[in-house]
Amino acid sequence: MTTPLFLLTDFGHDDVYVGQMKAVVLAVAPGTPMVDLTHGVRPQDVRAGARALGTSLAYLPRPCVVLAVVDPGVGTDRRPLIVQAGDLLGVGPDNGLLTPLLRLDGARALAIDQVRVASPGPPSSTFHGRDVFAPAAAALLRGDAVDSIGTPVDDPVRLAPASGPRLDAGGRWLGRVIDVDRFGNLITDLGPEHLTGAVEVRLPDGTELPVVRTYGDADPGRLVALVGSGGALEIARNGGSAAEGTGLNLGAVIQVLVGE
Amino acid sequence: MTTPLFLLTDFGHDDVYVGQMKAVVLAVAPGTPMVDLTHGVRPQDVRAGARALGTSLAYLPRPCVVLAVVDPGVGTDRRPLIVQAGDLLGVGPDNGLLTPLLRLDGARALAIDQVRVASPGPPSSTFHGRDVFAPAAAALLRGDAVDSIGTPVDDPVRLAPASGPRLDAGGRWLGRVIDVDRFGNLITDLGPEHLTGAVEVRLPDGTELPVVRTYGDADPGRLVALVGSGGALEIARNGGSAAEGTGLNLGAVIQVLVGE
Amino acid sequence: MTTPLFLLTDFGHDDVYVGQMKAVVLAVAPGTPMVDLTHGVRPQDVRAGARALGTSLAYLPRPCVVLAVVDPGVGTDRRPLIVQAGDLLGVGPDNGLLTPLLRLDGARALAIDQVRVASPGPPSSTFHGRDVFAPAAAALLRGDAVDSIGTPVDDPVRLAPASGPRLDAGGRWLGRVIDVDRFGNLITDLGPEHLTGAVEVRLPDGTELPVVRTYGDADPGRLVALVGSGGALEIARNGGSAAEGTGLNLGAVIQVLVGE
Repeated sequence: MTTPLFLLTDFGHDDVYVGQMKAVVLAVAPGTPMVDLTHGVRPQDVRAGARALGTSLAYLPRPCVVLAVVDPGVGTDRRPLIVQAGDLLGVGPDNGLLTPLLRLDGARALAIDQVRVASPGPPSSTFHGRDVFAPAAAALLRGDAVDSIGTPVDDPVRLAPASGPRLDAGGRWLGRVIDVDRFGNLITDLGPEHLTGAVEVRLPDGTELPVVRTYGDADPGRLVALVGSGGALEIARNGGSAAEGTGLNLGAVIQVLVGE
Repeated sequence: MTTPLFLLTDFGHDDVYVGQMKAVVLAVAPGTPMVDLTHGVRPQDVRAGARALGTSLAYLPRPCVVLAVVDPGVGTDRRPLIVQAGDLLGVGPDNGLLTPLLRLDGARALAIDQVRVASPGPPSSTFHGRDVFAPAAAALLRGDAVDSIGTPVDDPVRLAPASGPRLDAGGRWLGRVIDVDRFGNLITDLGPEHLTGAVEVRLPDGTELPVVRTYGDADPGRLVALVGSGGALEIARNGGSAAEGTGLNLGAVIQVLVGE
Repeated sequence: MTTPLFLLTDFGHDDVYVGQMKAVVLAVAPGTPMVDLTHGVRPQDVRAGARALGTSLAYLPRPCVVLAVVDPGVGTDRRPLIVQAGDLLGVGPDNGLLTPLLRLDGARALAIDQVRVASPGPPSSTFHGRDVFAPAAAALLRGDAVDSIGTPVDDPVRLAPASGPRLDAGGRWLGRVIDVDRFGNLITDLGPEHLTGAVEVRLPDGTELPVVRTYGDADPGRLVALVGSGGALEIARNGGSAAEGTGLNLGAVIQVLVGE
């Protein structure tokens, strides 16, 4: 069975960048099934990319290769990296993006030897996704041994854990909106672990929302708080957008009210 | 030959939702060709999703599986559904989205038994696309019998026919703009059946447009009316956007002027 | 090994147009790997489409088929075209879009005989991407001989070379911004050949920028000029968007300052 490739970048869908990467992969490893995990990571937001990767790991088939490129340091001396965790292989810049893979049991990191991966077209200093990472992923998909294109390193960059929610003087958790999805759901850095005994969630303007199980547990148009599909507390509006109307966006502070 | 999967959702392209659904499918049914029919359905607009599905049916290869998710009632007691129409299988929420499949000859509906489809990762109450519908579609793609994962039901939700165009006192058809595409073409609920004898189409501001065969039948920059690729009357501008300039949008009333 | 298909259109990702084209291809040539080169070409901008195709050619695997549709003249008498250049086959409208293929060694052009390519669903006058070009590409992918569906022509439309940069009275190159990518990089029609001896690049407001090798060669937030991944000079901001802040957009004049 052919190993699939999952792509995760901040390249969006309007330019030829993703298409060129896929062309490079198919030139070396024809027949590879390729799935866009997402290309909608906010430009150059390494932490958001790592978060998207982390929430997706449990759903990836094994074996598979993940090609992840959110790479503000492209062309500098930051290393190109492979992370091997069992039969899950990740390829991307050594800037913390692959942190969720580095946390897996038995994960090891290797610096890609660029001379050992060949790009079919002219290389550039600004698009290692196409000229370094895609050729490396393609070599792995073709069946090249990891150690034949990389050299083990023991100091891959790991993102520090996000500062995350904090307790206020009254013993209440204060979290923040860290993502807004297409439906206008406001996704926070709060999780089920902050909801023990919680009865309500308070928005910055003082609005208090019930914590429910799913969108439909509220009347149409009503705001609610719930644990979403990525495992984080989110503010949602049944049948609408929570971002619209509330005006809330990234960084907004969300307060968890502990029940009596 | 491997059966392909066609996906139709309102998930957009910026989040990881579609990628996670595809990962789940590949975990169960590796090698499945997967095609995005569209993920640009307006959020939670079940009728628009059904329309997109309906206009695409004639072009789908057989056999195939359609995974359709526009699901404002996710997590409530609305049933997850399979529709079988010959060698065309549809999977999605029982909210009317699959109406075009239910209209096919010999179509039958089954409620998915959720305990018989396994999600590889933690399930959620808000993302049945990943945790119920994708696993069900994957089981079908793997070759599981429809009846092994669903129980026949005789009351699947069907969308009532759209109210559609109406005749005014003068015997003229009045339709509405129901979609605007990337080119700014204004797609209406009028069809060839409303154009018998029609010589012109009138916009809300009184502008009268000729009915032509294709965009290029008018001078550059001119507005025209024509029957578009989905079989509906649309207002278009040769070499430009009809939405821009006219300011027309969803719901705008379009009048068909009957020839003498 | 199955020949892959690369798609390049101005259809965007929100409508069903691309999905229907792919359905048509799979109906005729099941198992075809399909890659979106881009669907983000500006609507009806044939020259931009040709540019996207041209910068991607070096990376395409061979054999392959390219299905390119930017087609403002759809439904008129412009011919549907196949371009054969060795084991690279292009399919699209005869409006100059395929110019980069016509420039390849030994390229030949054929007009598609529309009666010899069958669309599975009802044909339309406004969507030849689905009803003519996709069936033709599918026939080629299935292995039909080029000459069995097309008739050689010796006058395919070729885009005139872009006017490109010009020399001002002081012997300095003046170029223009011709594209803005997702990162806000301003891509110009200037190339390495205009940078001989150049030490700086001047924006319309007089700002002078160093020419560097990669984004990270400047301090965070600083504007730079560099040769980007498509081989063109671009204005970029390290860690940010050059389009934001400068307010520059398509057509902005960029001046190359020749060193003493």
